[in-house]
Amino acid sequence: MSLVEKINDIKLRHDYEAIVELIPYAKTIGVETSMVGESIVSSLRFMESNIGNPAVPALHGGVIAGFMENSALLHLIWEIELVNIPKIIDVSIDYLRPGQTTTTYSKCDIVRLGSRVALCNIIAWQEDINKPIAQARGHFLLSENRPL
Amino acid sequence: MSLVEKINDIKLRHDYEAIVELIPYAKTIGVETSMVGESIVSSLRFMESNIGNPAVPALHGGVIAGFMENSALLHLIWEIELVNIPKIIDVSIDYLRPGQTTTTYSKCDIVRLGSRVALCNIIAWQEDINKPIAQARGHFLLSENRPL
Repeated sequence: MSLVEKINDIKLRHDYEAIVELIPYAKTIGVETSMVGESIVSSLRFMESNIGNPAVPALHGGVIAGFMENSALLHLIWEIELVNIPKIIDVSIDYLRPGQTTTTYSKCDIVRLGSRVALCNIIAWQEDINKPIAQARGHFLLSENRPL
Repeated sequence: MSLVEKINDIKLRHDYEAIVELIPYAKTIGVETSMVGESIVSSLRFMESNIGNPAVPALHGGVIAGFMENSALLHLIWEIELVNIPKIIDVSIDYLRPGQTTTTYSKCDIVRLGSRVALCNIIAWQEDINKPIAQARGHFLLSENRPL
């Protein structure tokens, strides 16, 4: 069974956790996924190994970025009909507040969905969704087609 | 001894590996640092836990981004006189090629160094430095001063 077939099977069962199990990096940093109302929200449980600045201590910027990219990828996997795994083209991220030693959440909005490229806005927050710790936007390639 | 004092002590000893030991996330994803000629080059040894797409398999975009941010941070720590640990303000990244299951390298150039903010260009490559797998630019806050 190919990866896309496995994922399509998981989607049929609405088994949000099972996709994270397929992605070693997502497991390593502690990503979990659940459905909150009608949106998919990813959470990142606090782990010592995600600390970037042991003096504060605060989460590493890179783990916040990686988590947000993953959150967008999982959102796309759930929201669109899957032919191939979406590929990240570019991401820009603004760090707004330090990531504390608590659970971080992230959700994604698809701003524009073309046949080949999706543009997503992503936010990450901890205690309060109105005080995000970071915001990001990214393009994702949906098909494997090459330009003529 | 504060973190900055510890780092300044490590810098005096030119012990490039010891700083990575202080950053749990850098250790988790497998970062190593060495001096190549006059530049600091970070390397990311291949680890199964860094895979994002098990079908190819390819490195997770997020781990590449995290590694590049870390590489810039380590470069700044080595290159400038440290008062505080530099903080990431924003980063934008373009993914150019998939990350294969081999060692990844990254180096940073400081494009502009002000008293409060540094602008850095970062590239990541694997077999060939002329075929980077990703490029990024980022702003880093050097002091903790707040605007008046």
